Order: sequence, then structure tokens, then C-alpha cells
Amino acid sequence: MNVLAVGAHPDDLEILAAGSLALYARDGHRVTMCVLTKGDLGSDTHTRAETAAIRRAEAEESAAVIGADFFCLDQPDGFLFDGPDVRTRLVDVMRSAKPDVVITHHPDDYHPDHRAASRIVLNCRQLGLCGLVETANEPTDTIPGVLYMDTLTGIGFQPELWVDITETIDTKRAMLRKHASQNEWLKRLHGTDYVDYVDRQGTLRGLQIETAYAEGFQAAKAYPQPRDPGRLLPPSL
Amino acid sequence: MNVLAVGAHPDDLEILAAGSLALYARDGHRVTMCVLTKGDLGSDTHTRAETAAIRRAEAEESAAVIGADFFCLDQPDGFLFDGPDVRTRLVDVMRSAKPDVVITHHPDDYHPDHRAASRIVLNCRQLGLCGLVETANEPTDTIPGVLYMDTLTGIGFQPELWVDITETIDTKRAMLRKHASQNEWLKRLHGTDYVDYVDRQGTLRGLQIETAYAEGFQAAKAYPQPRDPGRLLPPSL
Amino acid sequence: MNVLAVGAHPDDLEILAAGSLALYARDGHRVTMCVLTKGDLGSDTHTRAETAAIRRAEAEESAAVIGADFFCLDQPDGFLFDGPDVRTRLVDVMRSAKPDVVITHHPDDYHPDHRAASRIVLNCRQLGLCGLVETANEPTDTIPGVLYMDTLTGIGFQPELWVDITETIDTKRAMLRKHASQNEWLKRLHGTDYVDYVDRQGTLRGLQIETAYAEGFQAAKAYPQPRDPGRLLPPSL
Amino acid sequence: MNVLAVGAHPDDLEILAAGSLALYARDGHRVTMCVLTKGDLGSDTHTRAETAAIRRAEAEESAAVIGADFFCLDQPDGFLFDGPDVRTRLVDVMRSAKPDVVITHHPDDYHPDHRAASRIVLNCRQLGLCGLVETANEPTDTIPGVLYMDTLTGIGFQPELWVDITETIDTKRAMLRKHASQNEWLKRLHGTDYVDYVDRQGTLRGLQIETAYAEGFQAAKAYPQPRDPGRLLPPSL
Amino acid sequence: MNVLAVGAHPDDLEILAAGSLALYARDGHRVTMCVLTKGDLGSDTHTRAETAAIRRAEAEESAAVIGADFFCLDQPDGFLFDGPDVRTRLVDVMRSAKPDVVITHHPDDYHPDHRAASRIVLNCRQLGLCGLVETANEPTDTIPGVLYMDTLTGIGFQPELWVDITETIDTKRAMLRKHASQNEWLKRLHGTDYVDYVDRQGTLRGLQIETAYAEGFQAAKAYPQPRDPGRLLPPSL
Amino acid sequence: MNVLAVGAHPDDLEILAAGSLALYARDGHRVTMCVLTKGDLGSDTHTRAETAAIRRAEAEESAAVIGADFFCLDQPDGFLFDGPDVRTRLVDVMRSAKPDVVITHHPDDYHPDHRAASRIVLNCRQLGLCGLVETANEPTDTIPGVLYMDTLTGIGFQPELWVDITETIDTKRAMLRKHASQNEWLKRLHGTDYVDYVDRQGTLRGLQIETAYAEGFQAAKAYPQPRDPGRLLPPSL
Repeated sequence: MNVLAVGAHPDDLEILAAGSLALYARDGHRVTMCVLTKGDLGSDTHTRAETAAIRRAEAEESAAVIGADFFCLDQPDGFLFDGPDVRTRLVDVMRSAKPDVVITHHPDDYHPDHRAASRIVLNCRQLGLCGLVETANEPTDTIPGVLYMDTLTGIGFQPELWVDITETIDTKRAMLRKHASQNEWLKRLHGTDYVDYVDRQGTLRGLQIETAYAEGFQAAKAYPQPRDPGRLLPPSL
Repeated sequence: MNVLAVGAHPDDLEILAAGSLALYARDGHRVTMCVLTKGDLGSDTHTRAETAAIRRAEAEESAAVIGADFFCLDQPDGFLFDGPDVRTRLVDVMRSAKPDVVITHHPDDYHPDHRAASRIVLNCRQLGLCGLVETANEPTDTIPGVLYMDTLTGIGFQPELWVDITETIDTKRAMLRKHASQNEWLKRLHGTDYVDYVDRQGTLRGLQIETAYAEGFQAAKAYPQPRDPGRLLPPSL
Repeated sequence: MNVLAVGAHPDDLEILAAGSLALYARDGHRVTMCVLTKGDLGSDTHTRAETAAIRRAEAEESAAVIGADFFCLDQPDGFLFDGPDVRTRLVDVMRSAKPDVVITHHPDDYHPDHRAASRIVLNCRQLGLCGLVETANEPTDTIPGVLYMDTLTGIGFQPELWVDITETIDTKRAMLRKHASQNEWLKRLHGTDYVDYVDRQGTLRGLQIETAYAEGFQAAKAYPQPRDPGRLLPPSL
Repeated sequence: MNVLAVGAHPDDLEILAAGSLALYARDGHRVTMCVLTKGDLGSDTHTRAETAAIRRAEAEESAAVIGADFFCLDQPDGFLFDGPDVRTRLVDVMRSAKPDVVITHHPDDYHPDHRAASRIVLNCRQLGLCGLVETANEPTDTIPGVLYMDTLTGIGFQPELWVDITETIDTKRAMLRKHASQNEWLKRLHGTDYVDYVDRQGTLRGLQIETAYAEGFQAAKAYPQPRDPGRLLPPSL
Repeated sequence: MNVLAVGAHPDDLEILAAGSLALYARDGHRVTMCVLTKGDLGSDTHTRAETAAIRRAEAEESAAVIGADFFCLDQPDGFLFDGPDVRTRLVDVMRSAKPDVVITHHPDDYHPDHRAASRIVLNCRQLGLCGLVETANEPTDTIPGVLYMDTLTGIGFQPELWVDITETIDTKRAMLRKHASQNEWLKRLHGTDYVDYVDRQGTLRGLQIETAYAEGFQAAKAYPQPRDPGRLLPPSL
Repeated sequence: MNVLAVGAHPDDLEILAAGSLALYARDGHRVTMCVLTKGDLGSDTHTRAETAAIRRAEAEESAAVIGADFFCLDQPDGFLFDGPDVRTRLVDVMRSAKPDVVITHHPDDYHPDHRAASRIVLNCRQLGLCGLVETANEPTDTIPGVLYMDTLTGIGFQPELWVDITETIDTKRAMLRKHASQNEWLKRLHGTDYVDYVDRQGTLRGLQIETAYAEGFQAAKAYPQPRDPGRLLPPSL
């Protein structure tokens, strides 16, 4: 199976889905991580260009932990808008990754860029198929299922599907620690340790299915529907 | 896997889930069909007792098509109410069938008995575990997942999970035809042929996942949640 | 009554509402069909310009079947975005068609252009009234009711209002067959015959109201509300 | 058209739907008002039996204003529960009134008896048809549409359908004034004049459709659906 | 302020609201804890009668930690149903506790007794006022606001209101530990330590408002609405 | 407390929240009123530039009634779109007003500019904090809570929080009367007096909490959540 995960900022996929991505990788599926913005607002000590460079390196290191391919579409942090250009670029990534499933943000998550990312992904879902949308890569011949990740701290979100990530929680933490610049900054801003923060959400999602750690997902409801949305995710043991 | 399907009337499980039940049976899972009422309002030519006897025989023949076990809890048609007695009897059936998954009506389906059946099933979900609820069978040691079937003609229902039943649509039709008394009666009442009726819904659910025939389901949202609700249903091919 | 139907692509109105539009026409109401994009992605053998020309001709022929006026706003297929220009053009169409009711896509339908079309229509609803929005036509003096069509295969949609189209199903099929280029292309893409496809949805909507074929609608909830939303649609016989 | 309105207490139909009932009567439709409980908690000066007698007389006077038939099913106020007995009695009323449409409380209205009344009505909808449910009157041969009235002060309710009652607001007030015992009691309890109270809600519902006074309704979503739910209500002028 | 908390089983209020109840008590409000069932299914080693006695003692000790009054309505565990008797008994408790606010289960929580408790509370809300409902205590003269607690593990629940319980988390744990019989039993059943279990949910609710521990609530939507639902809960510091 | 109210047009805040804003001011809180568009479509006798000038003066006079600061972001009426420029300007206003709470339109209100305003506000909520978003004012160090106002005539809106504005209803009316140009125009357009119009909605919201006049609000659900959303609003007396 080919899996494409699309996040708004360089650390979002790690926070919300790294346990599941690590399971896909463990099971031999091909994982591609694509980040839409440069994350260049994520600092109070560096310039935007410096921040972008630091975060790209961190994201690449994190993707390397599970052997995932990595793309960044270089949109401006805090100002991600849907439009012809970003759609065309994402269609090209989709044609490269040839996903059976695309994992992205929930449309009502807390951050404007998360909400925009979710809409951009859904809006591109059919376009990869259309030969008349010209990009570097060849058109695909299937329309992937779309799964929404949990929201930050779960506000406004109810999982429909759970993945037991107890086995990969340490990989998830390792990926999160690669985002060292953010971990420090957010700790100062919110007084919360990054890993502790993510653990709190994973531990409640785990409780819901009676395991130690889990991640929650919803399947986007849109024609054509994948037949077995629950089988697009890695199985529990 | 053990599958318990609980319907309000002797033909409901056939109309809404027989294609999936046939797939379970094909895959070697143990299927139990349990009907809560006698269906004894389903006639305009027989007495209630005669109707009950006719319909029980039809339902048993239908269950036999896929080799399912059959139970009827003998509640009065049109007047199914939750209460200690029906709960205790259903708990006993659950302890006999030892289901990994229970399939039943959606809580907002059109018929009062369907709505009552849905609530009774959800209300019994934890009770099988409690040794102090005494019934003929031994307590179970797991809490099954609960899946809701589609509603009649799909009003008020959006599938979350689909099962491709193209392979078993003929078995479904064969099971429906066992309910000969109802088929004739409903044809007079609604001017619709039973099988045609069911085909119309299956064909649209099929279109949603790009196959010929499908059935739709939702997973009940209640603690503890099964880890992989989508894997409680038979896989598409 | 004046009816304005606004679709994203040249065949959308036919798929989702042609039976009702034909009933309006039959009853002597004035029907205007307006398509926002050129549909110029709808081919794998022609150029975008050729495709646009072919599809415009097909749409005009289809509108002619029921004697409807036809407009195309020439936006790019797959890349329909709300903005000042498309709003102003649609306001001008609304001032020309002077609708009592506007029929358009549901805001959560599967295709990005459908979702955009739905929002653009709702966003233009009040603007026709404002004399200071200058267009070729004179301002209107009423705010029309807005009705949303069903979604493709009904995913994410529950009808509030049904129109019995048994009498016009053949007209609907005739209009669909005018879109010959799409019919062939979609058949190759999805393996589904266009007319069969549409029949499957019409037949289930029909079952919900106990007739052969129906189309489903919802009324947009927005001030000012039409007093009798159900009377904005053609009556069943 | 035959209209059956079913309220929980002797004044509920007047508060929430009298304007529409008066319009039905004006248009020559046959209106039946059925009250499920005796309203015998509605006093702080009389006994329950006295209160029941007073309120029955008031309700009959109110029904007489529009020439409606009147039934009371004599259930205890504050303790209305669904059950075989009340269902059978209501089925018999339905077989007598032969309604094309049944108007009742919204299932989430504020009072336990309102919520119970709503469920009892929906639960009886199909039963009138079944010959094997024996009551004094003959079975009906149609399943009526069900419309829910607004909730008290509109909490938890959004109208889908509006009726312009400007023409019958005075009749509505006249019917309300027949419930003199309640008007006085509620004035002491809530400090609100009955008619003023009802006017406040009617005036906002009116504003939503740009008229002076209106009442709001929703159609119950249940198979089989009436084809034209909006045409089950009296037309605006 | 007088606070009445109504739970289904002897430990439910502790699991879902003890942090907030402890804050009320700290602020000098009068807290009454009322449990509807005896909790007599909560054992696999004792008889029902023994279990009821053990759990009553545990619940009384827990209530004593914060100086709360305690009532148990002695309904059977697993078989709690709404009815005239339990309503009348709860009305009497409400007349004794004279609550400004009643805290109870969410209507869609996982356990049948939780769902029944929620409905019973809402159904009794107005009845305390009616002099003609006779109980040992005098009628109240106000209708309290109703707040719903979180569900177990938060499935199907989104908080509208949060209480920061960081200051009383240790009191909450102390109250939970009084339910020693359940703590041991649930540990065997679900493999989860009681306190750890509750901490996981409190820690995520805390994260949502950027504190260490929190509890979440919703206000029931029903006329008459308390003016300041957020002021019915203890303030954060 | 610092309160920032953001409306789409120069009179929206008065219609939907002036009673609450007046209460904040009475209690000594600092109130800032920010209007996103010039309201320059609001006339059928003046040019757009004249209309903008008239309405700005009216809005300033209205703000002066309660001593509120006033900003206008000069976007075009009827054509308000989210984008980098309007976001940056609003972030700068937020950094100037330093709000503890931001009050704005509901995301589904009837007018396109109201819906856009709601989204723009939510999209700017976090950005004030980011030092790398450069504006004239210094970054803030907190993320404010966001409250949504009622919709026009309450369509599609259910209050979660109510403010009793009986004490400030006359101030609200006085502020509305400052918008003389609109009052006259809307009277011609909708046949409704401005103040009467607003009174109708206030009187029903008042009825819901048993007072004379009220305004309704909802708290936006987004991380991080304010701990006590109900305490962000002025208390009832």
C-alpha cells in the first residue's frame, strides 16, 4: 500500500499520526510525508528564512526515522490559502506518491493552516486523475481514500477508527524529538513538554480501545468511498 | 469470528444485512440470527398466532440458507419495549453466541420495534459480562463491538462502513424469498416487490463504493470501542 | 415562477435535478440553467479548448430539450474559486433570470467545484438587490430561496424535500444522453453507464416516497427564509 | 385534508400550533385535537381531579373556536410513558381521525410529557394500518406524515417549514384565553402573560420569513416520507 | 449555592466529577450526592446484597471526604428504568437538596444505567415545583440548571465548559480510593488502575484549557435555561 | 478585561451584541469595536464613497455611546474575502486591543461578509502571538477566547450562553438609532423598523432565560479553550 500523509507544518504529522505512519512502515508500506508550509513562523529567535531551514532539516530527519519520502511545498506559515498553484503542486506530489490512502488534518482543527491543508487535500483528490491537469508526473488512475487525523487535544473530534500505537510509541517520540527547535519553543509558550503533550492525547485514545496508546482517525465522506476504510489503516495486533 | 445479528422482525436481518451475513458464513465465521418479536402483525388474512408460526418457519428456513443459528425472543410485534425480561433473555443469547460483533438496527430507523431493538441490544452489551446477572449460559469475558445496519430506504442514515455484497446478492435474494408471506403482503401494501425493493438500496450503496451491490453500516460509539471496527466486517475482494 | 439552476459543470444539473427542471418547464415556469465552469477537464482525448467547446454545445442541446435558457460563466474546471469576478458575473445572471428559487449544489458534495459553486451561489443571494453592485442588468427586488440538490450517490446528504419525477424520468435520460462525450468518458473511468448511474439514485429516492423515481432537495437555512420552501418545488401528482 | 394534532397537555397545541390549526380550519380541512394527559398537575389551588375537569372544559372550548374534534387520553400529567395501552388508544384515535398529517411535539422539547408524546405518536404511525391491532375503529389504509411543532421558546429547534399565521393570530390568542386557569397560574409562576409569551415566539418566527407572525415546523424523517412535506401545511397568502 | 449530583452507580460521580464537587465544597457550597442504583452487579465474588452493602459504605465514605450529603435510591444495577416510582423518589431528593444546579450523566454515555439516569434527571427537573406531586418534602420554587458530566473516556462527548481541578485532583483520587472493591475488580476486568484511568482523561481535558487536570461539562439545553450556565460551575483560579 | 468585537458591517455589532457590549462598558471593561468592511453597499441614494463616509460617522457615534474604541478595516462591502492583507491588519488591531475575548459573527450567519468575518477572526486568533508576523504593534502574549454572536433572526443558531441585557436595552436602542441611514433604508427594503426588529429577537432570547431582553452567544471550540467561557461574558444581575 502507498500512504501519503499531508500536514500543514513540519511537526504536525508527527504529533497526530507518527505512531500509525511507523506501523505502515513496519509493515512494508511506502510512506510519503508532505508538508505544505515552511513552518517559518515557528521561532522567536530566528528569522523566517532561518526558521524554515532549521525546520526543514528537522522534518527530513524525522521522516528518515521511518524511511519515509519527504516533500515540502514551501507555502508561508500562518498564511496557507487554497489556490491554483498549491493545488497543482500537491497534485504533482500525489502523482508521485500514488497513494491508496491520504492522511491529513481534520477540516475543523484549531489552526488556520490545518483547516486550509485539509480542504486543499480534499480538493485535489480527484484532480490527479485528469490528464488535462498538467504536471511533471503522469496522471494516476485511482482516487485515494482520505483519512482525517485527530485534532490538537481532540477538541471538536470524535474518532471513528483507532490505531493501537503501543508498539510504535517510542518511534513516535523519537520522531517528535527531531523537532528540537519547536519542542523548546512550545515549552516556553505553553509550558508543556512536547512528548508529554502528545502522550496525554495518545493515552486517552488508548483508553477508548483498552490499550496503552492509540491514534484516532475519521474517514472523509465523499464519493467514491473506499470500500473498507478501516482496512486502510494498520491493523492492531 | 462469532457474529450475532439481532433484528426486530423475522425478515429485517435479511432486508438490511443478509449479503454481509452470507459473506461471514462463506468465510467460515459462526453466524447467529436472533429475532426479538414474533412478527405476528404481519398479515391481513391470518390470526396473530398463525402469523407467528408461519413467520418463524420462514425465518428458520432463511437462516438455514447460510447455516446460521436462529433464536426468536417471542416479543409482541409492534409493541416491543425494553425491560428486565427481554434484556435477560437477550443476555442469555449473547452468552450462547459469544459474539465478537453484534449487528442490529440503527437507533433512528423508521419502525418503533427497530428503534427499541437497537436500544435493547446496546443496553445489553455490558451485561453478559456480569456474573451476578444470572441466566442459563455462563457469563462471557468480552464486550462485543456493535454495528448498526442501514435504515429502511436509508432515511436518516449515512454509512461509515460498506460491505461489497456483489458476490452474495443472490444468496440475499434467496433468503428474502423464504419470507414468502411477507413478500406478498408488502407487495399489496406498498406496491413494491420485496427483492426489487432491496435491490434498489443495495445498488445505490454499491454505487457509493463503485461496485454492483453493497450494504452500509455504522459502528456504535461507546466505550470500550473495538480497535478496528472496519475489520469486524467481511473484507471486499 | 422563475427558476435558476446553477451547476459547476455542464452535466451536473442534468444528473442531480433534470427531472425537477423538466417538471417546472412542463408547468410553464421559466427555467434558466447556468454552468459556472467550462468543464474543460472532462476528456482524455481532446485539448481543454476543444473539450470546452464540445461540452458547451452538449449543454446547450440539453437545455433546449426543456426550453431552458442557458449561461456559462467560463471558469476553469477543477479550479473554481469564489472571488469578486465570478460573483459579479453570477449576480448579473441572477438579475437577468429574476429567480424565485435558485437550485444549486450541496455545500458538502464530493467535487471541489461543486462545493465552490454552492458557496458562490449562497454568497451572491443578497447582492442582486444592491444597486451599488453594478452589472449590465438592473437590480432585482427580491431575495430568492435557495435549494440544494442531492450529492453524487447521496453521500453526506439527507433529503428534506422530494420531487416525484416518474413523469419526467425519460426527459431526464434524454437530457443526460446529450452529454455524449462525458457519458463515454465516465463509462471508461468508473465502469458505470451514465443513465444507469443516475437511475440507481433516482430509484432509491423514489422508494423513500413510494414512487418509481424521485429527486431529493434541502432548503438552505438563511435569512430571509422563503415562507413555503416545499412550494418552491413542483408538486407531485 | 384530515389533520390530527396531538399534544401532551390541554394547552400545548394552542401555544405551539393554534395559528396553523386555525388556517387548516379556515381552508375547510377537518381538524382533530387530541391531548394525551389530563393536565392534572396544572394548579396550586385545586385537587388533581378538579384540575383535570377544569382543563378538559377549557380545552374543549378552545377546540370549539375552530370547530375541531377533541379527544383526551386521560394519562397522568408529568408521568406520561409510552406503553401498550396508550399506543392502542392513540391508534384508535388515528383510525377515527384518518389523518393525512399528524402534528405533535418535537422529540427534544423541554417537558418530559412533550418528549414522551412525540415518541408515542411516531411509534403509532404505522400501527393504524395493521388489522391485527384491534381497536374500536377500522384500520386505516395510509401512513400519515408527521410534523413536529416548535419547542417552547425555540430552544433546540430550527424550523424547516414556516406557516404565516398573521391572519389567524387573533384566533390563536382567543384559543389561548380559553385556558384561563393556566394563564393565571403560569403568570404567577413565570411572571409572563400567556399571550405575550406566545406572541414573542410568533413574532421572531415571523421575522425569519418577513411577516408579522409565524409558526415553525419540522417534518419527521422516517420511511415512508410524504412526497411534499411542505404541502401538508397551510399555504402562506 | 446548592449542588445536587446524580450518578447511576456508587462510583460514577467520583470518576467523572469529583474534582469539581470538591471545588464546590471548598468554596462553601452545599453538595448532595445521590446514587440511583445499588451498584449490586459490581462484584464477581460477593452476592448482590453483599455487593450493595459494601458499595453503599464505600460511597458514603467517599461523600464524607468532601462533607457531601448522600442518598441512594436503591434501584437494581444494570436494570435502571425511568418510571413513576423512581421519578417520585428523585423529586423528593430534589426538594430536600434544593439545588441551583443538578449534575448528572450525559444522555449518550456508554452504560445503560448512565443513559437512564440522565433521562430520569431531566424528566424530574420541572416536577419538584408542582405541589400536586406529593412527596415527603415541600415543593421547591425554582427549576435548577442541569449540567452533563463527561462520558467514560470521552467517547461521544465534547466539553462546552471546563473546570480546572488541578487543586483538587488529590481529593478526587482520595475519593476514588474509597471505592476499593471496584478498583480491584475493574483492574482485573480492564487491566487498568482506577486512578490512572481517571488521570488519563483529566490530563487531556486539562491540556484543552492549558492546565494540569480538568473536568468537562455540557449544559442541558431546555427551557428555562439558566442565564449564566458557566457560572454554575466553580471558577478556575 | 479587554473585549474586542469584530463585525462585518458598521451596524452588525449593534444589532447582535450591543446590549452585552454596553454591560462590559458599564462594568469598567475596555471595549474595542472593529468593523471589517466600509458598509458601502448600504444605500440606494448615495455613491459607494458617500455611503462609506456616512456609515463610518454613524458607527463612530454609536461606539462613542459606550466609550468604545473604533476601527474600520475598509474592506469592500459584499466582497469580504480572507487573505494575507486583511489578516495582517486584523492581527495589528488585536495587538492593539489585547483582547481577553473576541466577539464576532457566527460562521453560518446569513450574509457572505458575516461568514467571511467569522473565519477571518478565527484564522487570526493565534497569529498575534507570532513575533515573525510583523505589524505596527507588539505581539501579544495570550490567545483570546472567541465568542460567536447570534445570527440574524436566529436562523441556524442555538445559544449556549445568554446575557441578560434588560438593563442596557435602551443603550442598545440608542446605538442602533445612530445608524440612521441604514434604519431608513432597511425599513424601505424589509418593511421592518430596525429597533422593532432587534427587539423581537431580544425578547425571545429573553424568554429563554426568563427575563425581558437577552442576547445569545456560542463559544468557538478550538484549542486552547478558555477555562471559563461563561465568565468571559458580563454576569446577569
